Amino acid sequence: MKSLGVIVEYNPFHNGHLFHLTESKRKTGADVVIAVMSGQFLQRGEPALVSKWTRTKMALSNGIDIVVELPYAFATQKAEVFASGSISILSGLKCDSVCFGSEQGNIEDFEQTIRLMDDQKEKHDLLVQEFIGQGYSFPRASSLAFLKLTENSDQVLDLTKPNNILGYHYVKAIHEQKSSLQPSTIERTGAGYHDPEFNDTPIASATSIRKHLFDHSGNIEKVQRFVPEKTFDLLGHYLHHVGSFHQWEDYFSLLKYRILCSTPSELAEIYEVEEGLENRLIHTMKESLTFHEFMTKLKTKRYTWTRLQRMCTHLLTNTKKDVMLNVSSSKRSEYIRLLGMSRRGQHYLKLIKKEVELPILSKVSGVKSHMLDMDIRATNTYALKFPEPTRSEWMLQEFSKPPIRYDEADGRFL
Amino acid sequence: MKSLGVIVEYNPFHNGHLFHLTESKRKTGADVVIAVMSGQFLQRGEPALVSKWTRTKMALSNGIDIVVELPYAFATQKAEVFASGSISILSGLKCDSVCFGSEQGNIEDFEQTIRLMDDQKEKHDLLVQEFIGQGYSFPRASSLAFLKLTENSDQVLDLTKPNNILGYHYVKAIHEQKSSLQPSTIERTGAGYHDPEFNDTPIASATSIRKHLFDHSGNIEKVQRFVPEKTFDLLGHYLHHVGSFHQWEDYFSLLKYRILCSTPSELAEIYEVEEGLENRLIHTMKESLTFHEFMTKLKTKRYTWTRLQRMCTHLLTNTKKDVMLNVSSSKRSEYIRLLGMSRRGQHYLKLIKKEVELPILSKVSGVKSHMLDMDIRATNTYALKFPEPTRSEWMLQEFSKPPIRYDEADGRFL
Repeated sequence: MKSLGVIVEYNPFHNGHLFHLTESKRKTGADVVIAVMSGQFLQRGEPALVSKWTRTKMALSNGIDIVVELPYAFATQKAEVFASGSISILSGLKCDSVCFGSEQGNIEDFEQTIRLMDDQKEKHDLLVQEFIGQGYSFPRASSLAFLKLTENSDQVLDLTKPNNILGYHYVKAIHEQKSSLQPSTIERTGAGYHDPEFNDTPIASATSIRKHLFDHSGNIEKVQRFVPEKTFDLLGHYLHHVGSFHQWEDYFSLLKYRILCSTPSELAEIYEVEEGLENRLIHTMKESLTFHEFMTKLKTKRYTWTRLQRMCTHLLTNTKKDVMLNVSSSKRSEYIRLLGMSRRGQHYLKLIKKEVELPILSKVSGVKSHMLDMDIRATNTYALKFPEPTRSEWMLQEFSKPPIRYDEADGRFL
Repeated sequence: MKSLGVIVEYNPFHNGHLFHLTESKRKTGADVVIAVMSGQFLQRGEPALVSKWTRTKMALSNGIDIVVELPYAFATQKAEVFASGSISILSGLKCDSVCFGSEQGNIEDFEQTIRLMDDQKEKHDLLVQEFIGQGYSFPRASSLAFLKLTENSDQVLDLTKPNNILGYHYVKAIHEQKSSLQPSTIERTGAGYHDPEFNDTPIASATSIRKHLFDHSGNIEKVQRFVPEKTFDLLGHYLHHVGSFHQWEDYFSLLKYRILCSTPSELAEIYEVEEGLENRLIHTMKESLTFHEFMTKLKTKRYTWTRLQRMCTHLLTNTKKDVMLNVSSSKRSEYIRLLGMSRRGQHYLKLIKKEVELPILSKVSGVKSHMLDMDIRATNTYALKFPEPTRSEWMLQEFSKPPIRYDEADGRFL
């Protein structure tokens, strides 16, 4: 069986994702598709719109055969770490290829850029430090350094584009991990990654879909034409049973509690709280009535919004520097946590089982792992927005819930 | 001016308190009365029914001249530490006497017991350890040791009674601090300390009054005959403006967050989390939907309910062992924080000001003190039950609010 890996958040699964999935299958001729998907908190440092279980259902009912959770230790990190963890899981599951969306759309440009950066690493790093010294954020400094390095070459990869950056790190991780994964890419079409407005195509960015859902809570009809039918049904079902979608404002009380009931030195132990930010956090929180107000006041040229949101996520989940650095330093996942599978996916797992070196977890009860503790804590935090008994049920099901099973012939969950 | 000190919680100020106050004034012939009062969290390890500011108003309008906050570092502790902090403040304010309520009602019995315990300290401590070894809680073991020591003497002080225990520690603290405070006591009449039922006298326990207020939220009429008119008005005002009284269930979400988003070793750093309780906390919290359910499941013969509630308060306020032990080891307050005063109280403060060695704080903005940080954090936590903007206003006013001033001639707040 020819296997393809994709790296996703599906927040929520929309027509653009379906297009990418269909094209990736066509391009690679894959028989089975594995998605490594972020859990309850995402790379931009925010809670997912709906839980990982509902997003797993969206994935399975739209053509994914196996959904595996990207551990929190990678999912809520900058592109380089996010990519390393993702690639380690797809390699671990013996995928033949990985296909990612990019603004560039041509894999050779990525390979060429990796070679160029390998050759000029020292010069690049010096330039990055120089731009940081000028007050730029790390991602911006990296982009500027890269532009400077390549200003006189025929280099065409635009590393200011978010999906090109991710793609670059996927290919780099494949090299570093000496993985046999074959990378390929598909050009992203339609709406830009962060485009907040709808247009007249059936493709809208996840950002615009989420924005719409929050602006018109309770009325999901307007996003219907941008998502597959199954996604629409699952969104409606979530709203009906859970009551609302998840957003940062739901967790603002807990963040306020965390920040105002910690000493500056306790805050400084949290991952990503760097360079005196601890005092700024306390000072800013005292004057902020909403998460948005807090973030707006916290923002400086020095840090991107995303970087600060990730820091807030780590504050919320009480993720400390020492633990995070210890856990993510290997750049590889310690386990493969199954969230769901189709019949085809299940068959594939049987075939490769003996070759897989990482433990495949169907349930997490009884497993000892600092990396896994973070995922459990992320779910505990994510569930706290609900009243009892829902939140306790969610916390307990994190341990007991088996992977979701899907019969793709019937189109039904088992 | 002859000055009298009382040590109070006024949760809320009721007819029994008024009786004690009137009798104490009569007995000591005092011109001015100073109350050292617990802040937002109380000795039984629970949030006060209404804020310290409203309780200050209750005190002033019922005959107290100066209200000073007992710092969190003493207010949420066992009798011995609670008493030390309280006595240090009354001594610091040059009080001539202190008068406390007790089941015993005769100060000579307290003095005699102190002498007996001084003589037999070693034997007593051995007996305590013996009873703890048999699985008794510390307070129960102390009572039993004391009973055993005195079984053949004519000792009459019953140290199983809560107010006798407190009184014993007040007198002991006066001795230890070589204070010139003259102790006296008045026999408590009417309802017992913990009596949850009303009877036909105008005196009901604070416990029964609180229970009634929570059982019939929004209907405070039934407690009217047990509290002075000003208390009744202030309770009504609080309910109207703040929306509800404070109870542990209001903070259960935050406690759940604290416990389920901490590692066992982080929990073990919290004051009063002893002897493997950290794992029991996590395990029990996972299965509990309310604070009451949590406490009931947590309770063992080894610990009293109060001891466990105090531990929960320290978890809630993130009070760590090292800080608490460091701050409370001196057994004396570092400052005198004024919450309110009458004209007479203000006059008294002017008279004694030059003799007072501790700093008298009218506002806390800009003051550096670990002990004071705990009080501020207690208010931050206490305020979190409200939605914005109320909670932020409360947090900010902790820094900016001057002491409440009361004109006793007019019966009006200034």
